Amino acid sequence: MRSASATTRADEMGMDVAFANAKKSYDEGGLPIGAALVYHGGEEPRVVGQGHNQRIQKASPILHGETAALENAGRLKPEVYRNSTMYTTLRHVSCPCSMCTGAILLYKIPRIVIGENVNFSGEETLLRSRGVEVVVLEDERCKELMGRYVREKPEEWYEDIGETVS
Amino acid sequence: MRSASATTRADEMGMDVAFANAKKSYDEGGLPIGAALVYHGGEEPRVVGQGHNQRIQKASPILHGETAALENAGRLKPEVYRNSTMYTTLRHVSCPCSMCTGAILLYKIPRIVIGENVNFSGEETLLRSRGVEVVVLEDERCKELMGRYVREKPEEWYEDIGETVS
Ligand SMILES: [Ca+2]
Ligand SMILES: [Ca+2]
Ligand SMILES: [Zn+2]
Ligand SMILES: [Zn+2]
Repeated sequence: MRSASATTRADEMGMDVAFANAKKSYDEGGLPIGAALVYHGGEEPRVVGQGHNQRIQKASPILHGETAALENAGRLKPEVYRNSTMYTTLRHVSCPCSMCTGAILLYKIPRIVIGENVNFSGEETLLRSRGVEVVVLEDERCKELMGRYVREKPEEWYEDIGETVS
Repeated sequence: MRSASATTRADEMGMDVAFANAKKSYDEGGLPIGAALVYHGGEEPRVVGQGHNQRIQKASPILHGETAALENAGRLKPEVYRNSTMYTTLRHVSCPCSMCTGAILLYKIPRIVIGENVNFSGEETLLRSRGVEVVVLEDERCKELMGRYVREKPEEWYEDIGETVS
């Protein structure tokens, strides 16, 4: 049985991996949004997938943090998804976006942990209404890195969420 | 101004491209689900992206027909998405799935045309509730190809929708 503090350590580990991916993307000139899929059905939590937004690096409109982590994990059995948590560094304006929300619902991932929530997002309601547990941390690293990027490259950020700078 | 019959020709063209991608995937041993994104903001409809499910070919859990078409299109301006239609060969059990539904909502693609609807899907309600026009054709090619695949490889099909064969 996992104690509350063990859960906290697992969440710290998951968010550390997500943040490392966000930082890597930032250093490459990309959108600093990272994610990690952590399986918690075994003795110890295990990272089964990790990735970051690839809009700039691969000109990809579908590789967000969360979907990149799913892609990195590859083909998994339904049982793995259903005993995993998705960690994502960002819940800024519209993250998790409707696509990543939909991917989480598709594979029945029961829990999502989000690094920061500077601005409220739309899809949290949909996730919760379908039984997904949503946890928002106040992770200063995530907040600072994303804030910096949006100030530096607002066009790229708005493009990523399908909007034009207003 | 486009007449009703011009719209029909555009839809036939879009579904032909989607079906060609589905057939290509089937011939490769993959899930026979194809899609095409067609821009209709110009004089003539123009295919801006096309693709097919890549679960088998690339061990990808996120490249469905629709997301593969978006990935193939690359980075597009919001205006292009908002004047495009997504064509997909399948609406079988759970297609468009929640992930592809979410991608369509993210980029504000206003219209989706589906090849067949042998079995009712869940996410159509979500799409319609957010203002997306959903058109279902009764395309016998799409129906036949998908039916054949599900009979031949039920495990792959269920894995693609995050389920186990029951
Ligand atoms: Ca994201
Ligand atoms: Ca599909
Ligand atoms: Zn997303
Ligand atoms: Zn899909």
